[in-house]
Amino acid sequence: MEAAMDELTQKAQAAKAAQRKLAHLSTEVKNRALNCIADGLIAGETEILEANRKDLDDARAAGMDQAMQDRLLLDADRLKGMAGDVRTVAALPDPVGEVIDARVLPNSLRIERRRVPLGVIGTIFESRPNVTSDISSLCLKSGNAVILRGGKEALRSNSALAKVIKQAAEAGGIPGDAVQFIESTERMVVNEMLELSEYIDLIIPRGGEKLVNLVRDNANMPVLASGAGICHTYVDRMADLDKAVAIAYNAKVQRPTVCNALDCLLVHSEIAGRYLPLIAKEWVKAGVEMHCDKRAMEILKDFNPVAATDADWGKEFLSLVAAVKVVDSIDEAMEHIATYNSGHSEAIVTEDYTAALRFLEEVDAACVYANASTRFTDGGQFGLGAEVGICTQKFHARGPMGLKELTTYKWVIMGDGQVRP
Amino acid sequence: MEAAMDELTQKAQAAKAAQRKLAHLSTEVKNRALNCIADGLIAGETEILEANRKDLDDARAAGMDQAMQDRLLLDADRLKGMAGDVRTVAALPDPVGEVIDARVLPNSLRIERRRVPLGVIGTIFESRPNVTSDISSLCLKSGNAVILRGGKEALRSNSALAKVIKQAAEAGGIPGDAVQFIESTERMVVNEMLELSEYIDLIIPRGGEKLVNLVRDNANMPVLASGAGICHTYVDRMADLDKAVAIAYNAKVQRPTVCNALDCLLVHSEIAGRYLPLIAKEWVKAGVEMHCDKRAMEILKDFNPVAATDADWGKEFLSLVAAVKVVDSIDEAMEHIATYNSGHSEAIVTEDYTAALRFLEEVDAACVYANASTRFTDGGQFGLGAEVGICTQKFHARGPMGLKELTTYKWVIMGDGQVRP
Repeated sequence: MEAAMDELTQKAQAAKAAQRKLAHLSTEVKNRALNCIADGLIAGETEILEANRKDLDDARAAGMDQAMQDRLLLDADRLKGMAGDVRTVAALPDPVGEVIDARVLPNSLRIERRRVPLGVIGTIFESRPNVTSDISSLCLKSGNAVILRGGKEALRSNSALAKVIKQAAEAGGIPGDAVQFIESTERMVVNEMLELSEYIDLIIPRGGEKLVNLVRDNANMPVLASGAGICHTYVDRMADLDKAVAIAYNAKVQRPTVCNALDCLLVHSEIAGRYLPLIAKEWVKAGVEMHCDKRAMEILKDFNPVAATDADWGKEFLSLVAAVKVVDSIDEAMEHIATYNSGHSEAIVTEDYTAALRFLEEVDAACVYANASTRFTDGGQFGLGAEVGICTQKFHARGPMGLKELTTYKWVIMGDGQVRP
Repeated sequence: MEAAMDELTQKAQAAKAAQRKLAHLSTEVKNRALNCIADGLIAGETEILEANRKDLDDARAAGMDQAMQDRLLLDADRLKGMAGDVRTVAALPDPVGEVIDARVLPNSLRIERRRVPLGVIGTIFESRPNVTSDISSLCLKSGNAVILRGGKEALRSNSALAKVIKQAAEAGGIPGDAVQFIESTERMVVNEMLELSEYIDLIIPRGGEKLVNLVRDNANMPVLASGAGICHTYVDRMADLDKAVAIAYNAKVQRPTVCNALDCLLVHSEIAGRYLPLIAKEWVKAGVEMHCDKRAMEILKDFNPVAATDADWGKEFLSLVAAVKVVDSIDEAMEHIATYNSGHSEAIVTEDYTAALRFLEEVDAACVYANASTRFTDGGQFGLGAEVGICTQKFHARGPMGLKELTTYKWVIMGDGQVRP
């Protein structure tokens, strides 16, 4: 245990020291290093896949389920994909050094806010080994050192990946200590890590709700967490029904396992009788199970509806299930959303100008839509390039986070001898 | 105790409900309400000063020291000053509604980031009752509800102020529930408050290190804290000595009790023999006590120097004391700063172009200066209008924080039926 703590503190200190150099490297050097990492992932295929095979053998022996095994699996194609993702990050604009704003004060002091890295970013993640290369490349590109703590089940895979990344980064001109991988699998290491605010500037948990809550409750440094997405689409009385069918269908069916998929459909009572059968017909064809309130049940009785329980409101289904509720006004819809939403993505479908504007103004969520599918909530779709995650906090960053969200700023003031009167 | 918890939860719920309305009020309404609050502070003079007198009587009876009593004291002039500060906030631009950026995506989705309030801001503060009107006006102007928890010693004063503010806000068109004052003085209420992330979006502690640490360690929502300012000024070998004397004098003497005052003077060894006697002569006239390293001791032996101890490096003096150290290079100066600074304000005095640029680039602090006094680190000086505090964290905001730093943004997406392919 003590050895594990020593490992952690030493690596955190080394990361902090390395970051001071990394912070001032040119974009050219950082990009070269990232491309070296991509090359390294391909060149290291044999050892990485060998390590992954051992992890998978243990996982099978321990009775890990098939879906989890698939998340853990690496093969040549997946490795190529990971290398490609690193090259994509290399090709993105460098956020560091951007002058956010600048002006000259009345006393001739020149003052500007300049974008700088946050420092050392700790990340605690589960299962998927691609997080190792993914988060490393995002951190390094934005001038941050990274401390990786992966799941026990992927220890060998992550360790092999981290070794390759570290060596390749160094070969490309980034201090190798800027990438640290925690080998210890002691559970207490996570708790210790969450108290190292002296060295770690930000913690990013990547995993299930349990992990995210553990980190939120125990970290004494800031946390950037991607939370659950409980997404509503409200079909207003003035909705264009064709658009409303296309949008609700896309939001639920196109990829039901992700956070920006539709969880709850709210429909105005004036059009519910016409609209609900139209969307139900399409949804049922796609295998969607509808958990309906009393009025929706009545309208959809020919579509095999399930009676909703209280637990269906505010639930993230991550599957082909949708809650359905009939409301009597936009106010009732917004009230329902205010009660049950998780601050992710919310949509209205309407041709009513004032209703659209009210919804966009009054609903409090990271992303609010008029007449579009909530499935667009995504760093790539929003033009941010790579995505660190989708933040449902309000602080520092909100919604899709790109490289900029891994930075902060400093005030740079240039004078000529000015003193304060 | 249970009653105190009930009070807290009920007030937090009420604040959250009120904030939903406040978030969408026009700038006109908010400004009118703030001016009503200013009027109310003047009109309520008799009851406010009466409440304050009772607090002061108790404080004296309990043996509170004179300086603390002075911080607690309100009189007609101070009340007028508080009202004036509220009017100043009313006159500032409204940050809410600003479109931070906007563009049209290739699929014709129109996407923008719009500045919105954070929500409910909790503040825990000590002693000075002016925080009540100060923080309330900043929160309301930026569309946030506020929950105030002041010190026990100022309970009657704060309560009277909060009552006036609440009534005046309501008279001006802001829901009165947007301002909540916690009457209970149970210590556990603070801990309970730090766990109400369901209702409170941000906690701002205003007080000493002990309070700030308690809040940092226990809050499960984000914290915006003003930390200690341990500020260095490095006089380089190529410094203009006249500027260096003026800057170090101003940084130490102009107002020694504040966080942006000079704590440590670093001087290059090539010019220490000429420069140190010049600044020492001025400092000694002003009553500055110099805690010197060995080489500075030797140079300043005629100026009554004190031998520095290890505790003098990285110490915030908040008084007419300065640590003084001779260094052999800009690298040694920056290394010292990296070891001991608190991320507040750091300055170099030099005519050497490359040295200035290196210092501004490589020193990691909220504010970095070339050839100017660190005393400029201030929201007013930086042109932010009112100041919420000076943040030494890196997350969300850094350095002087104005109204904008009490906001977040949301993504607003306007479509015409778009779905994700």
